[in-house]
Amino acid sequence: MSGPQDTIIRELLELAARPEVISFAGGLPSPEGFPVEDVREAAEHVIRTAGRQALQYSSTEGEPELRRAIAALETSRGVETSPDEVQIVSGSQQALDLIARLFIDEGSRILVENPTYMGALLAFKNCGPTFGLLPTDAAGLNPAALDDSFKGARFAYVMPTYANPTGMTMTEERRIVLAQKAKELDLWLVEDDPYGELWYEKRAPKSLRAWAPERTLRLGTLSKVLSPGLRLGYICGPREVLDKISLLKQSIDLHTSTLTQKIAARVIESGKLEAHLPQVRELYRTQGTAMLQALKEFMPEGVTWTEVEGGMFIWVTLPESIDTTELMREAVANNVAFVPGAPFYALGGNRNHLRLSFVTVPVPRIREGIERLGKLIASKL
Amino acid sequence: MSGPQDTIIRELLELAARPEVISFAGGLPSPEGFPVEDVREAAEHVIRTAGRQALQYSSTEGEPELRRAIAALETSRGVETSPDEVQIVSGSQQALDLIARLFIDEGSRILVENPTYMGALLAFKNCGPTFGLLPTDAAGLNPAALDDSFKGARFAYVMPTYANPTGMTMTEERRIVLAQKAKELDLWLVEDDPYGELWYEKRAPKSLRAWAPERTLRLGTLSKVLSPGLRLGYICGPREVLDKISLLKQSIDLHTSTLTQKIAARVIESGKLEAHLPQVRELYRTQGTAMLQALKEFMPEGVTWTEVEGGMFIWVTLPESIDTTELMREAVANNVAFVPGAPFYALGGNRNHLRLSFVTVPVPRIREGIERLGKLIASKL
Repeated sequence: MSGPQDTIIRELLELAARPEVISFAGGLPSPEGFPVEDVREAAEHVIRTAGRQALQYSSTEGEPELRRAIAALETSRGVETSPDEVQIVSGSQQALDLIARLFIDEGSRILVENPTYMGALLAFKNCGPTFGLLPTDAAGLNPAALDDSFKGARFAYVMPTYANPTGMTMTEERRIVLAQKAKELDLWLVEDDPYGELWYEKRAPKSLRAWAPERTLRLGTLSKVLSPGLRLGYICGPREVLDKISLLKQSIDLHTSTLTQKIAARVIESGKLEAHLPQVRELYRTQGTAMLQALKEFMPEGVTWTEVEGGMFIWVTLPESIDTTELMREAVANNVAFVPGAPFYALGGNRNHLRLSFVTVPVPRIREGIERLGKLIASKL
Repeated sequence: MSGPQDTIIRELLELAARPEVISFAGGLPSPEGFPVEDVREAAEHVIRTAGRQALQYSSTEGEPELRRAIAALETSRGVETSPDEVQIVSGSQQALDLIARLFIDEGSRILVENPTYMGALLAFKNCGPTFGLLPTDAAGLNPAALDDSFKGARFAYVMPTYANPTGMTMTEERRIVLAQKAKELDLWLVEDDPYGELWYEKRAPKSLRAWAPERTLRLGTLSKVLSPGLRLGYICGPREVLDKISLLKQSIDLHTSTLTQKIAARVIESGKLEAHLPQVRELYRTQGTAMLQALKEFMPEGVTWTEVEGGMFIWVTLPESIDTTELMREAVANNVAFVPGAPFYALGGNRNHLRLSFVTVPVPRIREGIERLGKLIASKL
């Protein structure tokens, strides 16, 4: 974020951190979902059995055991992946930066959803691209509408599963069409998937990479399912692109922490990540469902939201007369907070949306907060 | 490294990894110097007492306790530093990248020593600068020779203490002159100091930052004294520059691992880092001294080297008729390895130098390897 409006939002988010505020403005996973004891045991094991290696420099591509573990996870989730097709990075945010630096020259065009993840826009903007907007309809990204006018873009950045900020998920049919269009238009797909494992009732459709492995860079992360504090993400893609990414990464931070990589590999290999996931899913499902229910009860007519099936966010659309950045000030004064939608739009506009996160708020507080927010919105209509 | 010559060097370095090769080509600290047990205890303590925080997102500036610990260390070493003047980064290499991206536009001029750290050249080159060479004499960087022609450079990158690759150290007098010149010429100083704590007999002169705090960005790292696998470095400097660096870092990797920061803070705060350092110094002193002695015994006339007083490297100058990149091939065939000097020169040339590291080689092997290398060089004269 930059610019005066973003400064306002940042200041309001600071106010929202007061304990009396029910904050739906968070983007952090719930610490209740962290497998602290599993990480402790893994750290103990790693340092006792391979302490010197864990504290030494590692290779830029990543620790072999973590690459193996990630490849096995990806394969088990429906996309055959070899360790060679995995590059470890310091969180998905670094993947976005690396891809931006590799693919974008000043002025080159990239395609994004509208709205899209704010942190991706920030990473891309460092490299001075121009933004093209991917075509959408009521069900989100509509790949059938991709025509020759989208040719020549450096890549299309998409978050097909439980997206940040919208919570929406692309159907399998649309994923297949998008992959097909990418081939026809000679387009790289950058598939960002931080939330895919956080499904509530059933798993989302398979990764885009299943349908266009030769032109998809798939970004994954352990931040939402294991721990963001480890700063571990990964890119799955063709080795020849990963070679370039690795060479660039070497010059910018040598490699990602050996110790945290070995700890994560141990947690995954021992089966504890998979064993732990149902608990996180259940926590998020309960709270997400409670928020959907509360929205139904307490939102005035004219307000709509995404019926999310996984992930951390619900996207709310207000009547166009309401500017959510302005609303935020009053909301915080009423001890309830959200993230205004404007910064998620690459080209601005669209000031009547807001993003809600429920993952760190207990159910009774969710209901209380949504009721408060509903009343505030109703007073504006 | 890039270009065909660098490919040759990379291939030779791979050959040098064979166990029968006595390799002085390493740049890695000795794992014998890692305080594995201290790190284990710290990890255990951190995860037990603050597990959820250690696994959660952190602030881009860095964990408060690590910033405090670093500030205290810096202050104890002669430069009054507040936690506010400390930015945590993912190893010094990331500091180089951040500074390059903040200070360098395509074509802007930066000043470097000749030779200088290869990894810094790589980080800087990503941003397309032109290189100016800092004036030197037999004692290394000679700041008295800095005149108005150096004005307008974005910064001067210097490694004043036990430099990589030369092992040389600037005198206190020269540091004071450099700081004075920086003020006169309105020049930023980027002081890279990864090896300062690795002194053998007595501590090196104080940081450049002591003499020009308002225009020095001082880079430190825990990689050589604690563990490179934690990927922890830091930048000390004026808060207004750190604010810009922090904003940039946020968009490229959010922040550095919370867990590794908390572990390092615990090791430092408990006094274990300071307690552990004498052992590393003694290890490096013993091996460095053995190598200096072996060079005296086994090198033919016409070969010179730096009489290092700390750090990890000795720089050897051969008669100009010998190209060390070519020599490397034969050396590896003779089961001894070094790093050819050419890639350390921003503008190329200077093909008759080589860098030796002794830190991972036991004394008898150091003597054996230098004897072998001496014979090989003698055969070329």
